[in-house]
Order: sequence, then C-alpha cells, then structure tokens
Amino acid sequence: MESAIVEIKGGVTLSAGFRAGAIYCGIKRSNLDKPDLAIIVSDRPAVAAAAFTTNRIKAAPVKVSQAHLRAPETRAFLVNSGNANACTGVQGIENAKHMTRLTAKALGLRERQVLVCSTGRIGVQLPMEKMEPRIAELPALLKSDGSNFVAKAIMTSDTFEKEFSVRVTAGSRVFHLGGIAKGAGMIDPNMATMLAFLTTDLPFEKKELQRCLGIAVEKSFNRITVDGDMSTNDTVLLMANGAAGGAVVRAGDPVLGPFQEALNQVTRNLARMIVEDGEGVTKFVEVQVIGAATYQDARKAAEAIANSTLVKCAWNGGDPNWGRIVDAVGYSTSKVREELIDVYYDGLIAVQNGMASNTPVEELKKAVANDRFTVTVNLHLGTAQYMVYTTDLSPEYVDLNRSE
Amino acid sequence: MESAIVEIKGGVTLSAGFRAGAIYCGIKRSNLDKPDLAIIVSDRPAVAAAAFTTNRIKAAPVKVSQAHLRAPETRAFLVNSGNANACTGVQGIENAKHMTRLTAKALGLRERQVLVCSTGRIGVQLPMEKMEPRIAELPALLKSDGSNFVAKAIMTSDTFEKEFSVRVTAGSRVFHLGGIAKGAGMIDPNMATMLAFLTTDLPFEKKELQRCLGIAVEKSFNRITVDGDMSTNDTVLLMANGAAGGAVVRAGDPVLGPFQEALNQVTRNLARMIVEDGEGVTKFVEVQVIGAATYQDARKAAEAIANSTLVKCAWNGGDPNWGRIVDAVGYSTSKVREELIDVYYDGLIAVQNGMASNTPVEELKKAVANDRFTVTVNLHLGTAQYMVYTTDLSPEYVDLNRSE
Repeated sequence: MESAIVEIKGGVTLSAGFRAGAIYCGIKRSNLDKPDLAIIVSDRPAVAAAAFTTNRIKAAPVKVSQAHLRAPETRAFLVNSGNANACTGVQGIENAKHMTRLTAKALGLRERQVLVCSTGRIGVQLPMEKMEPRIAELPALLKSDGSNFVAKAIMTSDTFEKEFSVRVTAGSRVFHLGGIAKGAGMIDPNMATMLAFLTTDLPFEKKELQRCLGIAVEKSFNRITVDGDMSTNDTVLLMANGAAGGAVVRAGDPVLGPFQEALNQVTRNLARMIVEDGEGVTKFVEVQVIGAATYQDARKAAEAIANSTLVKCAWNGGDPNWGRIVDAVGYSTSKVREELIDVYYDGLIAVQNGMASNTPVEELKKAVANDRFTVTVNLHLGTAQYMVYTTDLSPEYVDLNRSE
Repeated sequence: MESAIVEIKGGVTLSAGFRAGAIYCGIKRSNLDKPDLAIIVSDRPAVAAAAFTTNRIKAAPVKVSQAHLRAPETRAFLVNSGNANACTGVQGIENAKHMTRLTAKALGLRERQVLVCSTGRIGVQLPMEKMEPRIAELPALLKSDGSNFVAKAIMTSDTFEKEFSVRVTAGSRVFHLGGIAKGAGMIDPNMATMLAFLTTDLPFEKKELQRCLGIAVEKSFNRITVDGDMSTNDTVLLMANGAAGGAVVRAGDPVLGPFQEALNQVTRNLARMIVEDGEGVTKFVEVQVIGAATYQDARKAAEAIANSTLVKCAWNGGDPNWGRIVDAVGYSTSKVREELIDVYYDGLIAVQNGMASNTPVEELKKAVANDRFTVTVNLHLGTAQYMVYTTDLSPEYVDLNRSE
C-alpha cells in the first residue's frame, strides 16, 4: 500500500479524540511546582495493547493494569511519578486499584477501563490522602493539546521530555500515531524503568493491536541498555480509539504495513531518546552483531558488548579498546570462531580475522571521539544479526547513582 | 583424620622442592625496574592440575597450557605480565609454544613439562626478541624463597602482591600448600583476568589432584566478581611434587579431607585478596542468597545482585538501597515469591515479607558505611544457598578503566 509517514509535533494528543493533563499532588519529595500525576484519556471507546516488565517482581500498578487489560475496552491511562508503588504488598495493590476507581469515578468510566502506571521510589506506600482530591480535579485539566504536560509529569531523573508523533497517509486512509516516554536509570533490554504511552486514532481489533505492539517493542524498547538493570515497573501502553474513521483494522488489512512501520518509527525514536538521556551518558552507541550462526547467538553477543562495564568505560575515555569487545563476545556464550571475527568502528576495521587490523589506532580513536558511533562485529558464521542501542559508562553515572 | 592447618608465610616456595624467580624483559611499556617474566619450578617430577577461563575466546598460552597439561608430568610454570598474548592468531600460539621450548631448554626439561600464562594487553604480539635472552637467564635466578618475586612480577594494575600459604599436619603426615595470585580488572565468577599459581609438596595422583582443584576453584575464584567481565587468560595452576614424602594420594586417602580443607582455605584467601584489590574498590561485600528453591536459583539471584551496577553504585555512596537488591533478584530469573523475600544488611533486617522492615534507615546506613558487610537474601522457598564476594562500583573504577 502506498504510504507516507510525516513527523508532526503533538505527542499522544496528535491522535484525534485524545486529551491529556497533569497536576501536582505532592508525591515527589521536592520540586513543588512539578506535576507528578498525569492522565491520557480517549473521548470515545478504545482498545488497548501493552507490554510489561519481565522482572519477576512486578510493581502493584503493573499487576492491576495486567488485570484491567483483559477488559474489552480501555479509556484512560493514569500515571504518577515520585513513587513506584513497588514492594508495597497488599496495601500497594489496593492503592493501585483505588487510583483506577477514583479516576473512573471522576470521568464516568468503569474501573477496568483505566490502566495505571507508577515510577519513582521503591518500597514506600503512595500518599493516597494527597492524591485522592487531585484525581478528582483531573477531568477539568484535560486538554486536546495536553501531551507535553504528561511528558513532563512522568519525568524522574530524565533531563528532557520525550515525545514523538506522526501523521500517516496510507492509500485513502489518514491517521495519527503519537507517543511519550520516560527513561533514565535502570534501562535494559526487556523493559527497564521506562514508561511509554502511545495513541492512535485508527480503529483496531484488540488482538491485532497487541500483535503490532509486540513487534514494535521487540525492535525498540527491548533493544536499549544503559546499565543492565531492569525495573519492576516498566510498561508500554497503546490505545486505539478509531477517531480517524474507516473500517476496524484486523489481520490481513493492507493498512497494517504502513501502521507497523509508523509504530516502529515512533517507538524507535522514543527508545533512542531514552538512551540519549541515560544517566551520565556522553556517547550513544549502536552495537550490531552480524554473521552469527543463530539469532540468539547474535543477541547474546550484542548484549554482552552493550552491557560490558569495561567496554563502556573505554568508550567514555575515547579508547577504541577492541580487546574488551572481543573478550565480551567470547564470554557471551555465543558460538564464535576467534579467527573469523571482524570488528568495525563506524566502518573502520579494527579487528580482522580475530587479530588487530592495520587501521592506525589514531583513526579508530577519531571514531570513538564522536558522540555517536556504531560498533559492528561480524562473526562470519551465518546470516543472523541483532542490534542494540547502548551508551558509555561515565564517572558521572556512578556519582548520580551513589544515592537516590 | 585429625589435622591442623597453620598459616605460614612463604607463598609457592613454602612447599618443599619448589624454587621461583623473576626478571625484567621489557614487555611492560613503562616500569623499567619491574620484573615482567617469572617462573616457578619443581626440582623433582610433579603432577599438575588446572582450571582455565570459560571464555570462548582463549588466549594463546591458555590453549598451549591446555595441551601441555595432558603430559603426565609437569615441572615449571612460566608467566609474563604486560602482554596477554590474546587475539594474536597463529603467531601468538607459536610464541607461547616457543616460550615453553626456551624454558625447557634452559632448565633441561621437555617442552610439554612447561605450562605458560600471560596477562596484560590484548592483541599485540609478544616481543620474543627481548624475551628469548632473558628466559635463558631464569635458571640462575631461581630461589627457594623466591615466591614474592613472582607475586610481584605478575601484578598488572594490582596494588599489592597476593600470597597465602599453610603448613598442614594431618595424622602422621606433614605437608605444605602455597599460592600466589593476581587480579584487579575483569574479575567475574567463572574466572576473570586473574592468575593463580599453587604448589604442594604432597605426592598426588594427577586425576585426584584435578578433582580437588575443581572443588576449591568452584568455592573461591568462581565466587568473586568486580566488574562482571571475564577475561581470555584466566588460569589457575597447581603442581604437586611429593617432596613431603609418603604414599601417593589417591581417591579414598584419609589425607584428602585435610588437603581439600587447606586448598579451599588458600584459594579462598587468594580470591578475597583479589576482590579487595579490585580496581577502585572501597567496599568488600559478601552476598548470600539462602532459602532458594534450587542451587541454580540461589546462584542466579546472588550473581544478579553482585553484578548490578545500580546496587554497587548505591553501596559506594553508603546507601542501603534495598529496592535495587529486590529488583535484581526479580530480574535474575530465579524463582521468587515477592511476599516471602527478606533482606538483611549484616543481620539487620531491611526487607521483611517483600516490604520495608521497621529497621530505621539510619541503622542500615551504619552497616553500609563499613568497609566490609554482608547482604543476606532469604527467598523462603527451599534450602539451597549460594555466596558471592563482590565490591562497590566507584567513580574511580570508571576513571581507571577509561583507558588502558
């Protein structure tokens, strides 16, 4: 299907029929003026899809949202920052449920039509007495261009708000897709303390929407790593409300191609922003492993490189230390033959047949001196490949994480 | 069998019939006065046992030593620092073999009776022309109290030499067990850039010696982690030369109990010194996971905590951040039930039933303020347990590793 994807500002409220808003409750310990409770609402019936943390210890809102996602219809995403509502026991679950109950009451919805997310400190109960009156005020704050308020409210140690949205023309159909996200610490493949909220005004069958989101998440949020830690709260939520009109999109619909492409583009851009805003990050690195015997081999090798403390320290110092890269490939348990390994920095060959290439180290240093570069490892054992976005590791990262 | 194990200084030359020495060849780029080539020799026939890196990319000396270990008799361990002879291709293998050939010639041994180790820079060929004349000089430098010269010569970014040795009285038998080691960067369970050389004057059947070493390594060098990276060169070598006299020790010998205990003690002490001397380390932490459903679960949970960048940063800042510990347990893929998890800092309960305990945070901070403390996680799902030694992660670590 002929299609065009154009970036247009607007975030989650670029999609028609969505409104958003945020308010300050006092959940955050400081920053008195910074909103810490936000909502995204569809003005019409919508279906939702989601991806949640694979951490075996899941925050209370994750458990409640997983249950509410089973409802056929979803209308609102509620999110607070400053408190993760994780490791909070039965009381935490009750509080997360109560957040959805209060939101439903304020908006005239059913409790199960509200999904809920939290991000922030672990192990502390939410100050429900502060939140209850504010949730009641949320409907009055909803704006049809309110995306940026939510993008700001969900920030914790993020330094900039993350929004990306597109208008898609596909054949005779025109629709929108918008997203916002937060990241910063604990970023790892398989979802880390990151939240992302997505909206589209295309009408969708729920099951098909979930399938599309799964594909997009695997190629975006699951490919990013800052510190190898994975949080208890990671969540990606997507609502489709059909405000763009037309037939409900089901399996086999030709618009699925352009939709998936747009969804991949939005999620990949949000994932990239999360990595770029990683704590103490000075370099953004794309790690590509190609020529692997299997997909799992490519993945293990790429993730070992992307998570190696020593590799990341070297990058921070501008050192194209390929020995540490080869070492990481070796302990990744990926199938390798040392004498076949090639390693490139931005296309400059650093390792050829498992040994130092003839490229002058000064040229390799120039590549690593850049804020962005690509490391490519060719295992020459097959055709499987995998890509991960990662960062350097700086003394500033450690400083930032010495205490909360 | 009644036995007594007494620590006595002397390192690898405390065991009778061993001599050791070191010399400067010019392999290291700076430190003109610091020896970088060392040897440990048994004056009589001996058998050897070994443990090598599990990294799939193995340095040339590892491959050569693995082959030479198949010989029934071993007489010498040769080791250089300053160059790892890793990722050096066919030339690297030839150089490692040549090192054993030159040593054998100098000492009147057979090539296969010499095992060889290297540690240092990856991807650079050894300066054989500088080493060849020095290897010929090594026999003249051998001393029956030379252990400390070797312990010094194998240091790379180590800040102190690591030696530990004991005299064992077991029934009517008296024997010695001595060891030296190097560590510093790239320290991880399953062997990292660490070398350890062990000697005993007890006479041993080769197969039984290997079995004993396997047990000791699993409980010592495989339980330590500084940065989660595993090197291409890790090697533990043990020679038994029978100079203490008596019957050759085989399976079922009652002296095996005291010997194993002494070997565990020597290896555990060397492992502890390696962690204490980890790059930029300010805290030494014992992570215990108890009450796990299976041994593998206990191990995965303990290693996830011990390798978590965020947990280690928090310790560096004196922050008893138990949320990050529970989070690491959750993503370790160990079986867990959140509501059963207890976490202790030095016996002070921080998490009870998966939630914050009543222990004042100031008390927990006191525990984490110490240079050494223990973190215990009880999963309350079974009886399996695992222990790992680890460290904090400091801004200084990153600084040290920004370039080689």
